Amino acid sequence: MIRVGIVGGTGYTGVEVLRLLAGRSDVEVIAITSRGADGQRVDSRFPNLRGVTDLVFETPSAARLSECDIVFFATPNGTAMEQAPALLDSGVRVVDVSADFRLRDRVEYAHWYGREHAAPDWLAQAVYGLPEVHREAIRGARLVANPGCYPTTIQLGLLPLVEAGVVDPRRLVASAVSGATGAGRKERADLLLAETADSTRAYGAGGHRHLPEIRQGLNDVAPTPVDLAFVPHLVPQIRGIHATLFAELTGATEDLQRLYETRYAGEPFVDVLPPGSHPETRSVRGANVCRVAVHRPDPASSRVIVLAVIDNLVKGAAGQAIQNMNLMCGLDEGTGLGHVALLP
Amino acid sequence: MIRVGIVGGTGYTGVEVLRLLAGRSDVEVIAITSRGADGQRVDSRFPNLRGVTDLVFETPSAARLSECDIVFFATPNGTAMEQAPALLDSGVRVVDVSADFRLRDRVEYAHWYGREHAAPDWLAQAVYGLPEVHREAIRGARLVANPGCYPTTIQLGLLPLVEAGVVDPRRLVASAVSGATGAGRKERADLLLAETADSTRAYGAGGHRHLPEIRQGLNDVAPTPVDLAFVPHLVPQIRGIHATLFAELTGATEDLQRLYETRYAGEPFVDVLPPGSHPETRSVRGANVCRVAVHRPDPASSRVIVLAVIDNLVKGAAGQAIQNMNLMCGLDEGTGLGHVALLP
Amino acid sequence: MIRVGIVGGTGYTGVEVLRLLAGRSDVEVIAITSRGADGQRVDSRFPNLRGVTDLVFETPSAARLSECDIVFFATPNGTAMEQAPALLDSGVRVVDVSADFRLRDRVEYAHWYGREHAAPDWLAQAVYGLPEVHREAIRGARLVANPGCYPTTIQLGLLPLVEAGVVDPRRLVASAVSGATGAGRKERADLLLAETADSTRAYGAGGHRHLPEIRQGLNDVAPTPVDLAFVPHLVPQIRGIHATLFAELTGATEDLQRLYETRYAGEPFVDVLPPGSHPETRSVRGANVCRVAVHRPDPASSRVIVLAVIDNLVKGAAGQAIQNMNLMCGLDEGTGLGHVALLP
Amino acid sequence: MIRVGIVGGTGYTGVEVLRLLAGRSDVEVIAITSRGADGQRVDSRFPNLRGVTDLVFETPSAARLSECDIVFFATPNGTAMEQAPALLDSGVRVVDVSADFRLRDRVEYAHWYGREHAAPDWLAQAVYGLPEVHREAIRGARLVANPGCYPTTIQLGLLPLVEAGVVDPRRLVASAVSGATGAGRKERADLLLAETADSTRAYGAGGHRHLPEIRQGLNDVAPTPVDLAFVPHLVPQIRGIHATLFAELTGATEDLQRLYETRYAGEPFVDVLPPGSHPETRSVRGANVCRVAVHRPDPASSRVIVLAVIDNLVKGAAGQAIQNMNLMCGLDEGTGLGHVALLP
Repeated sequence: MIRVGIVGGTGYTGVEVLRLLAGRSDVEVIAITSRGADGQRVDSRFPNLRGVTDLVFETPSAARLSECDIVFFATPNGTAMEQAPALLDSGVRVVDVSADFRLRDRVEYAHWYGREHAAPDWLAQAVYGLPEVHREAIRGARLVANPGCYPTTIQLGLLPLVEAGVVDPRRLVASAVSGATGAGRKERADLLLAETADSTRAYGAGGHRHLPEIRQGLNDVAPTPVDLAFVPHLVPQIRGIHATLFAELTGATEDLQRLYETRYAGEPFVDVLPPGSHPETRSVRGANVCRVAVHRPDPASSRVIVLAVIDNLVKGAAGQAIQNMNLMCGLDEGTGLGHVALLP
Repeated sequence: MIRVGIVGGTGYTGVEVLRLLAGRSDVEVIAITSRGADGQRVDSRFPNLRGVTDLVFETPSAARLSECDIVFFATPNGTAMEQAPALLDSGVRVVDVSADFRLRDRVEYAHWYGREHAAPDWLAQAVYGLPEVHREAIRGARLVANPGCYPTTIQLGLLPLVEAGVVDPRRLVASAVSGATGAGRKERADLLLAETADSTRAYGAGGHRHLPEIRQGLNDVAPTPVDLAFVPHLVPQIRGIHATLFAELTGATEDLQRLYETRYAGEPFVDVLPPGSHPETRSVRGANVCRVAVHRPDPASSRVIVLAVIDNLVKGAAGQAIQNMNLMCGLDEGTGLGHVALLP
Repeated sequence: MIRVGIVGGTGYTGVEVLRLLAGRSDVEVIAITSRGADGQRVDSRFPNLRGVTDLVFETPSAARLSECDIVFFATPNGTAMEQAPALLDSGVRVVDVSADFRLRDRVEYAHWYGREHAAPDWLAQAVYGLPEVHREAIRGARLVANPGCYPTTIQLGLLPLVEAGVVDPRRLVASAVSGATGAGRKERADLLLAETADSTRAYGAGGHRHLPEIRQGLNDVAPTPVDLAFVPHLVPQIRGIHATLFAELTGATEDLQRLYETRYAGEPFVDVLPPGSHPETRSVRGANVCRVAVHRPDPASSRVIVLAVIDNLVKGAAGQAIQNMNLMCGLDEGTGLGHVALLP
Repeated sequence: MIRVGIVGGTGYTGVEVLRLLAGRSDVEVIAITSRGADGQRVDSRFPNLRGVTDLVFETPSAARLSECDIVFFATPNGTAMEQAPALLDSGVRVVDVSADFRLRDRVEYAHWYGREHAAPDWLAQAVYGLPEVHREAIRGARLVANPGCYPTTIQLGLLPLVEAGVVDPRRLVASAVSGATGAGRKERADLLLAETADSTRAYGAGGHRHLPEIRQGLNDVAPTPVDLAFVPHLVPQIRGIHATLFAELTGATEDLQRLYETRYAGEPFVDVLPPGSHPETRSVRGANVCRVAVHRPDPASSRVIVLAVIDNLVKGAAGQAIQNMNLMCGLDEGTGLGHVALLP
């Protein structure tokens, strides 16, 4: 039995971890923390969990986190780097779903997050939790930095091209849209339905925190340094990320469909669609899968267009976190992650 | 191994049956039919099923329906009463998710559906598939008429009051809203997102086909004849029915909360919420459950207000059909129906 | 030139008043107040007003409110009763779009709003701003209490029946839905798109503040005391209220269509739809009109069903406020209110 | 008095032309045609127009189109090139809102639209109706080809860069999203709310008909040939196009903000936002305006990002058509186009 704890359980990642773990007989969630909701039943806040769990939110100090095998940090940025080290030192393994351990470079971290990193030693030991790239390291990791939602989509979309060295890494473009859960459960007027329904807007066009994370991930596999333009957008939907990726082929024509199918042949959670496909975000709603399609609009041109979709709360957060937990615990990577997407 | 067939597999009920049955090791779907999609892979139309099924649509004549233990009819109204009898005669058991066998009275059927019933003998044998009322009969039924989505919600909402005889059965009011999947996957301009988003409208205020079905069901348990006003509405969401029910107490104060909790104490798929609750349709999205709350706004008044929600495609269609299948096959009623609602 | 001031301009009513007044050559908005946005341009917060206005938010003390002919209070409940009296005493006429002056009974006010009324003298002088009932009094009023959004819809829907005394006033039922702007621009997690999209929920089933307002309005015109059950709901749309109203005829058959058409024959902003109609909220999106349809589902029954829709921000708030302003200023009631609804 | 006719009045462009013309005293719509809706009142199909118009749909042959000064073709592609020439020959001036006369090159037309052009002589005379580029020619035109919705947004977004020759015209990227009205009022299952809500998908990634139109327009002003990658997407909203445009500066740093402000200084319907802005599509909902923002995310990089939004039915169709009509009739270009966007 794997004993699991969740720190910061009142956000969307927390409830999603519970939904995805429901029904597993090999996992027991023994603690879920929240300062604000201390003493409340989890299902009083998330009524979809009625009948599924009797868990009650506790303060972090009261919760039996040190008895856990794995603790998920589903906290705002800045909390995990403060609180995880004590747990790690006591032997608990951690999957941090926040951004605290994603950027390996402390200087870059400080630049994008506006504070010094509080646990640079652990930063050096953290493994970036994208199983499609770092599977072996994740198996042995004590601390896994779960990737961001945009970075997961965009890296999975571009990896085959960048790894194979067939595109110009200085000319990558990523335009991506996200549903509103991507911003978390924040009491912000600009996220009200009245402000966001029936409308689309970009944000962070001048620079978004996920850009250095994507760049770091692609640089790890690219033959030469990557330059990427990235614009995220908010669209009026609850879940789902759709990334539209543009690249330029550097050499002779490649069979791009085959390149993608080969790269992802053994991957349980990446689905390469048939030629000519356009993935819909609803096709992954609630499921731990990334669906990808690759297009060459004009054979005479060097342009490549890649379309990739995930559910930001599943493959972009809680699902990938459990995928990482499975790897860390020596289980089959797909254990308990067979949820079929809800369509329609 | 239960061998299942699905007739009319290109609608929302068909894909939802497949989603809900995915992962069951005791059930095998051996045939799914569609005239229009003959020869197409099911997952080419419903990409959420990629990796889940290799089924291919066949014409009804080509499909091995007669080898099935259970066949679900997920067809437009009028088809099952034509095609089910031959299967029934050959020993196949049928769950009809369409409306063909719901109204026991042939005259009423002809009035509301505009045609004579094609299988009156089977109509007389059909069991109305609301397990919370007809569980024992369903177990032995050869033909189950799966209830409509509004009728499921409204009957489950009113049953405790009507059965107990504590409200005036002539003064029932039901105002209910449905998401757009309630209308099926029809190529109708008035169901386009461009026509239905950001808007609410009633329909059938002059008389809706679900009214006689609800009336029949309530009359079965009411001490005196029922009169019900019913107005359905289309709201801009994909799934979900919310029924708001009004009744008048006839006698001394009852403990209504206790009445509901007692009535549904043993029911696996009816969830009575705590006093003062307001169920959200998203709390049942994708799950086979009806959540109910009962209110008395003014202790000095005889008014009772009941709020009930279901997912129209699950407890209102495919999920309830599988619940009925489980009963018919002697299984635990909840087998394979533990899906947690997708929230957010 | 009518000089207008807006107190509390950062909410939805404020921006909507500005939208509706744009282009009027007989009205000048000379002041708009906000403590939080002091010094900001209005169009920096509401970019739809770019090119339309150069107004800058000011604090209430700095604004030239006392130079106005009319001041609209678009403030949270509790503010107008504190701040309006001084303006009124200086001769400024006030349209209060909040709820402060709607309930004539101080005791009822205190019960529903949880505080003593701060200006009982002005409460006694306030005129309820539903022109279809109180037109003449509005013309001469110094203080108009602009009706709530649900109360406007439900009163306009039921007035012909209640005034004519043809229904049992003790058996009225109102089930109504509202878009999210009905809750205002509040930083509340339960109003996020991520929490409210693709879902419907009731609220206030145990008692809502609009209930006494509706009851007061109907009692003004009913032959005997009114009893009304009222349940409001939040549906996933931006604007729009849809009320579904149930009543019971007390006597012989009435020609209800004619009753409605006669009652509203001269009304510029109430549109009685042809028999058999179902009004959509989008048909009034952005327009100052209430569309109403009346149904008798069964000639043998005494049931009457009325469907009524408005845009909660227009006929339910800012538009009706301007309609009242027009009356108070001796203008044609419809001046500047000819906006055609945005459909699709 | 300008006498106007509308051919193909049952689509979204038709109703939008009527909404925008409502209240103009200098324009009279004397004919609106539809074969399918012949004899029906226009407001029976578009209830927002109740009280605004008494027009009745007629067949094209019955309608007094030849008596019009201007006829708008709001027809499916292929109709205008068949029917407009006879009207043009009789002296009627035409604004074609369909795609029939947008591509000047007959070969390209045949390639993208799958048929030979039926009126090549008129094709040669047609003026492309983007006033920001072709204002003078539009004034004297007999036949105006109203631009597509994506082409309007993308051209207005890129024009200042391309005209000034400061970006590499071979490295342009356009990722754009559209609401569902962009697809018209078609009875297609893939446009149902049940299929499109809460989801995003790209389409035409292998080549979309608007690509050659955009390319033609940019080539007209570019110093060297343009190569553009273009991917359109469907997002779950009713109206609105958001284009995200990527380019690479070729030379020394430009003051891009000033470049845009200068280029559009005199334009009544292009609004350059302040530096750092992110336009929302709702800020132009119902209004004839394009809002544009220009970003340089990294001063050390040559990347430029432009964000541009329009309402596809207004500046992307009916509004621009009226803007063109105003020019053709010698009126002030902005006559009757002062509608303020509906926000929220």
